[in-house]
Amino acid sequence: MEKCLELAKQAASLGEVPVGALIVTSQGEIISEAHNLREIENIATAHAELIAIERACKKLGRWRLSDCSLYVSLEPCFMCAGGIVLARIPNVIFAASDPKAGAVGSLINILNDKRLNHQCHVISGICSEESSNLLKTFFKVRRKK
Amino acid sequence: MEKCLELAKQAASLGEVPVGALIVTSQGEIISEAHNLREIENIATAHAELIAIERACKKLGRWRLSDCSLYVSLEPCFMCAGGIVLARIPNVIFAASDPKAGAVGSLINILNDKRLNHQCHVISGICSEESSNLLKTFFKVRRKK
Repeated sequence: MEKCLELAKQAASLGEVPVGALIVTSQGEIISEAHNLREIENIATAHAELIAIERACKKLGRWRLSDCSLYVSLEPCFMCAGGIVLARIPNVIFAASDPKAGAVGSLINILNDKRLNHQCHVISGICSEESSNLLKTFFKVRRKK
Repeated sequence: MEKCLELAKQAASLGEVPVGALIVTSQGEIISEAHNLREIENIATAHAELIAIERACKKLGRWRLSDCSLYVSLEPCFMCAGGIVLARIPNVIFAASDPKAGAVGSLINILNDKRLNHQCHVISGICSEESSNLLKTFFKVRRKK
């Protein structure tokens, strides 16, 4: 998770919302890492989790990431949680909750919806204060501009 | 929508689940089109809608598609509906409903969730039978293999 926070800091230094994500195999190897890139790439869907999933699929040459865990510094949104289900990722670990747009416990819990064909084991709250502080500082500075 | 069905047929001929999507400006210009590419590209998130959004953002050089409409031959899933909200697309027109994974009326309606910062105007049912038949035929043939 500390690595996710490093990625989030990189994002902030580039003017992106500070969110970092990485995907790790069951052997502990980091397969992919990413931070938000919406502003730099001008792509609405360029969230850390989705980019990390795409990079992991490309690296492994398969779309099923059923032996992987995803770490992310903020609770995934609807889009990213949906992408996690589609990639069959079994373990998701996130830091801070997102009461406005979070889809893993805040507004809904997509990763534990029995109507879908995949559910995840979720751990949350690790380094949540550090992650929240990064986000708060980022938006505070941005509002002043 | 007929163009979406053509794209869906192309997808089926390539072994992809037959779903096609396109994005059109308010002036009626087609900005991007796409079909599913999960099997060919080996990327879990390679759904028609998300690819069409990414292509439209790249073409227009901006992440806000607030002057665009998205047409798709199947009800968007959680991921794609989330992506539509993030891209601020105001109009979504889809053909067939997806009772198993649809997130625009079937399992949930993400495009009309007042807790999010964007809602869409949705029209559904146009060419739904043609789209359903394409999907049914595709899965019937695949099950026989």
